[in-house]
Amino acid sequence: MIIVLKTGTTEPQLEAFSERLTEKYNVQVNVWRGTQSTVLGLLGDTHTIDIEAIQANEIVESVKRVQEPYKKANRAFHPNDTVISVGGARLGGGSLQLIAGPCSVESAEQIIGIAKRVKQSGATFLRGGAFKPRTSPYSFQGLRAEGIELLLEAKKETGLPIVTEIMSTSHLDLFEEVDVIQIGARNMQNFELLKEVGKLDKPVLLKRGLANTIEETLMSAEYIMASGNEKVILCERGIRTFETYTRNTLDISAVPIFKKLSHLPVVVDPSHASGISWLIEPLSLAALAAGADGLIIEVHNDPPHALSDGAQSITPDRFDQLAKKLFSVERALRG
Amino acid sequence: MIIVLKTGTTEPQLEAFSERLTEKYNVQVNVWRGTQSTVLGLLGDTHTIDIEAIQANEIVESVKRVQEPYKKANRAFHPNDTVISVGGARLGGGSLQLIAGPCSVESAEQIIGIAKRVKQSGATFLRGGAFKPRTSPYSFQGLRAEGIELLLEAKKETGLPIVTEIMSTSHLDLFEEVDVIQIGARNMQNFELLKEVGKLDKPVLLKRGLANTIEETLMSAEYIMASGNEKVILCERGIRTFETYTRNTLDISAVPIFKKLSHLPVVVDPSHASGISWLIEPLSLAALAAGADGLIIEVHNDPPHALSDGAQSITPDRFDQLAKKLFSVERALRG
Amino acid sequence: MIIVLKTGTTEPQLEAFSERLTEKYNVQVNVWRGTQSTVLGLLGDTHTIDIEAIQANEIVESVKRVQEPYKKANRAFHPNDTVISVGGARLGGGSLQLIAGPCSVESAEQIIGIAKRVKQSGATFLRGGAFKPRTSPYSFQGLRAEGIELLLEAKKETGLPIVTEIMSTSHLDLFEEVDVIQIGARNMQNFELLKEVGKLDKPVLLKRGLANTIEETLMSAEYIMASGNEKVILCERGIRTFETYTRNTLDISAVPIFKKLSHLPVVVDPSHASGISWLIEPLSLAALAAGADGLIIEVHNDPPHALSDGAQSITPDRFDQLAKKLFSVERALRG
Amino acid sequence: MIIVLKTGTTEPQLEAFSERLTEKYNVQVNVWRGTQSTVLGLLGDTHTIDIEAIQANEIVESVKRVQEPYKKANRAFHPNDTVISVGGARLGGGSLQLIAGPCSVESAEQIIGIAKRVKQSGATFLRGGAFKPRTSPYSFQGLRAEGIELLLEAKKETGLPIVTEIMSTSHLDLFEEVDVIQIGARNMQNFELLKEVGKLDKPVLLKRGLANTIEETLMSAEYIMASGNEKVILCERGIRTFETYTRNTLDISAVPIFKKLSHLPVVVDPSHASGISWLIEPLSLAALAAGADGLIIEVHNDPPHALSDGAQSITPDRFDQLAKKLFSVERALRG
Repeated sequence: MIIVLKTGTTEPQLEAFSERLTEKYNVQVNVWRGTQSTVLGLLGDTHTIDIEAIQANEIVESVKRVQEPYKKANRAFHPNDTVISVGGARLGGGSLQLIAGPCSVESAEQIIGIAKRVKQSGATFLRGGAFKPRTSPYSFQGLRAEGIELLLEAKKETGLPIVTEIMSTSHLDLFEEVDVIQIGARNMQNFELLKEVGKLDKPVLLKRGLANTIEETLMSAEYIMASGNEKVILCERGIRTFETYTRNTLDISAVPIFKKLSHLPVVVDPSHASGISWLIEPLSLAALAAGADGLIIEVHNDPPHALSDGAQSITPDRFDQLAKKLFSVERALRG
Repeated sequence: MIIVLKTGTTEPQLEAFSERLTEKYNVQVNVWRGTQSTVLGLLGDTHTIDIEAIQANEIVESVKRVQEPYKKANRAFHPNDTVISVGGARLGGGSLQLIAGPCSVESAEQIIGIAKRVKQSGATFLRGGAFKPRTSPYSFQGLRAEGIELLLEAKKETGLPIVTEIMSTSHLDLFEEVDVIQIGARNMQNFELLKEVGKLDKPVLLKRGLANTIEETLMSAEYIMASGNEKVILCERGIRTFETYTRNTLDISAVPIFKKLSHLPVVVDPSHASGISWLIEPLSLAALAAGADGLIIEVHNDPPHALSDGAQSITPDRFDQLAKKLFSVERALRG
Repeated sequence: MIIVLKTGTTEPQLEAFSERLTEKYNVQVNVWRGTQSTVLGLLGDTHTIDIEAIQANEIVESVKRVQEPYKKANRAFHPNDTVISVGGARLGGGSLQLIAGPCSVESAEQIIGIAKRVKQSGATFLRGGAFKPRTSPYSFQGLRAEGIELLLEAKKETGLPIVTEIMSTSHLDLFEEVDVIQIGARNMQNFELLKEVGKLDKPVLLKRGLANTIEETLMSAEYIMASGNEKVILCERGIRTFETYTRNTLDISAVPIFKKLSHLPVVVDPSHASGISWLIEPLSLAALAAGADGLIIEVHNDPPHALSDGAQSITPDRFDQLAKKLFSVERALRG
Repeated sequence: MIIVLKTGTTEPQLEAFSERLTEKYNVQVNVWRGTQSTVLGLLGDTHTIDIEAIQANEIVESVKRVQEPYKKANRAFHPNDTVISVGGARLGGGSLQLIAGPCSVESAEQIIGIAKRVKQSGATFLRGGAFKPRTSPYSFQGLRAEGIELLLEAKKETGLPIVTEIMSTSHLDLFEEVDVIQIGARNMQNFELLKEVGKLDKPVLLKRGLANTIEETLMSAEYIMASGNEKVILCERGIRTFETYTRNTLDISAVPIFKKLSHLPVVVDPSHASGISWLIEPLSLAALAAGADGLIIEVHNDPPHALSDGAQSITPDRFDQLAKKLFSVERALRG
């Protein structure tokens, strides 16, 4: 960490500040005096230092981290790809995994039907919303507990591990048999929830928030990992920008950046990123080409009658064609 | 609600769609046929209609709301300003209220000391963080339950009602004696939490999310109100933009817009909006001039040693000068 | 165009407004009266109607376009891909074209050397900056007229058509022999410049502005086309968002959207979109997978000593490897 | 300037780099060796150093400026407020100036009529668009040369100095008698235009670009000043964000920040910032309260029939009321 002091800082101020840093954070402080400004270099484990607390000091002009503020999620400390195994599927480390299913679970028939179809096409995970975060209190809120039961039935029928979203620590009991717990974009900084899923021994698919930076996403992964659970899957699902044609803007660069900065698996959600079904194919291909380990895609047997987000769902037939194209491009990319 | 159909929609498709709308949403459907496109007009109570479900239909080109999707928060249905009385203070309806206190509660001495000072300067509410949402798991997370006890002590000493943030439904018990519960920006769309505070008979200060629109903020207020609690205070605290000089960009226009669209009181948080203490004065004055009912300002006796967000706190002395200036400008504005 | 009128609009107001619309824009006005609101539907050629002028009317609640406001750039009126032929190269209509070269032209040796190398690797256009838009007046501003001469020399040596940026209508004379004129992101809404290049018979590569929507980009293409020049190439080069890791955020969705809305060729600039050389490979692959007709890539023989934007340039060797990978993935995609 | 080197940089690399910096930029390089990283501190006049060229070096981890990259616009080198006198009016240095007039000049009657009315209300400058930057080539483009003549007539009638926008260097001759030349938001980084107006002895009102940072705005001011013209007026007119209720988001914080970083006068344009006439009053008051030296407000005698931007114009009557309120609040603020 590099701290630039304000012009006019006195020697006693500098010494007092330097001592406080050493004591509080157990770091070594090097002082470099220029003619215009004095710079402090902090050596040691600086990732726990609160940069804002430093910045508040009246003698501090600016602060700059040299080390990243996350550690467990950092590839520097864990050079090999983390591979998360669930059932037979393995997320991370090279091969493309498809996570598919409807936005909302609606009935046994619907979820089992879709599960069978996407499995045939090569999906290795079933997704489906039981608890649904909706902007309006008057919109369908999901089947909730019943939805999870239906997902478990579909799992029994197909063997596909299931991925579904949790919205509150008070629902944790209901997620005991869920294979992968999803933290939605709106809860990416629901830190109490992150701490709780951090105590489980179960993979967590963490979606990047609409207005969160890449670094903040890694810090939320760090919350889960610091609580003990290192099975975190990062998910890019679009960020909010000024563009209005798409619901969000898929930040495709986040894929290779997450892969470089972190060892965790990275999946992309083209359905929520765009909100438009005809964009799913080009965005899925782009995500694969950019290095994603997996895709999470909304598939619905009857999009116009879907109880939520039909506009961004594709049919099982289109999913089948897309999967074929993806696997063929994957071969060209890896080969 | 206006629905534009795609060119080429057949008469039977139109009829089937129209019937479904009537049945499902209990609305009257008017059809207007142009030479290039056919337009449907939906009459009745359309605020519960899920615009995305409509959009997913294969014959739909685009959908446009005429009515706002919120009702209880809507000034159209509640023309007079809502005034929320807490202790002696009244938020909403015209006079400026000051909510002041430290970012984090740190000790009895600290919180009581600051409470006394800000009360002398004219503050009518004491704010202080007990549960702190922090980007890093390694940063100070607040005194939690103990922090709330200290706030209650400060309340006993000064009579000031207290405002403090809740981060999880599982902490609700601890907030029984808290006067105003704050929902932080990161939890603005934590819908399960909104529903729970919606069951209380206690004012809720709802902060706008970093990447949430004005309409989404009103929809979150609607969540609380639809659950039964109509005592909602809206808070503008800055949005995330490309500008990096300030931590966030205070959306000053949101103040008069919230006041026009809704009857709820509106407060502004210049401390979090900017993250810079010397901006608090101009931004507070601007918020007042734009029509805010209140300001929520971070005041700390010793900003450089604050355990969080010291960089954006002002001292009690500066707060006192600011309060004087604000009340004097308020007279000019209302007079 | 659909116009929703305010509640309380009187019949004479409606009639007067309706007549004015018919006269001024030569459109047919259909009136649809609901119980809550009255809606007007405008039929005819509405793309010249100024939506803001309509919105200003005191009886207008809101306005919505049904037709896009651009016509010449619109695929609806020109279903087949536009293919732009320059020298032997053909941009648009299916095969991937590579436009490569240094950010700035620095010397004859440099530009000719790079031109030869990128041609060997399969590039069909040479890019290079002669006039450089720089944020600081103290940064290198390009070799200007001399730079264009050097580009023309490199063209003579290699046969590669050249692409270079214009910054002012007063420099037009210097661009006579340039094959493709580039309009930079900062000048995308320099409408006087657009009108002038619209009078030429020469392809124009139009970069999307940092804060411009997809529709605005197409409107700027429309400016050029409405002036007579239909040889426009659209270029996505990243937009400005809150993310700070990359210089801009590549909006990968813009590629398939431009292709759907317009018939014009679409290229992607991964160098400026990211500002980081190691991101060029994944972003180039993603752009290809998303459907781009071409890529414009910065290649420099000695990036650390480049006079501008070295951080985002790759060496000729890395470009060679990238080109091989791109052509191989292209076969898998089209095959 | 602080340069952090990558781990693993060798001593000869460091020396070679250090020598090159000294030679090229005439700065003194101090080396500070930590156990994890080596840091260079550059002393001397670093504002001409191209930060991107530094960043491109393979041994550089990151670069951080200590000094701002602008000099002539910097308050550090020019502590007193710049006051720009035009006719009798003085912009900067304390008192509120009102610049008012229609979006577009439409006729002699219109512009003279409005000029007389706004002068009566206390405006000291007349604004009006002759050359109009419009998103669509099919929208009214302004009366152009004729518009400037009409503005000059209005000036003759009222004595008000005139402010109008230039869109191309090729129109410079037409602006000879214009008092204040406006550079519009879309041309804020039209560097060739900035250089040309920098050669004049005439005040330039520089509008912040839709997606430009505060620092970039000051760099554009620096372009004008570095060319010799120090009479620059900064104008905040809203930035582009995800919020859709307003056309742009007024960045009210930019006002006090511009005032702190620079000595130049700062005006605010609430009309373009919001695009909504009823927001002009609260935003004008907020801008004044935040410290603006002036306001530039669209006033039209007949907003619904305005040829451009009627939706954001107010009538002369409303302007009169607003002016009264502004001057009264100004007294409370300064008093």
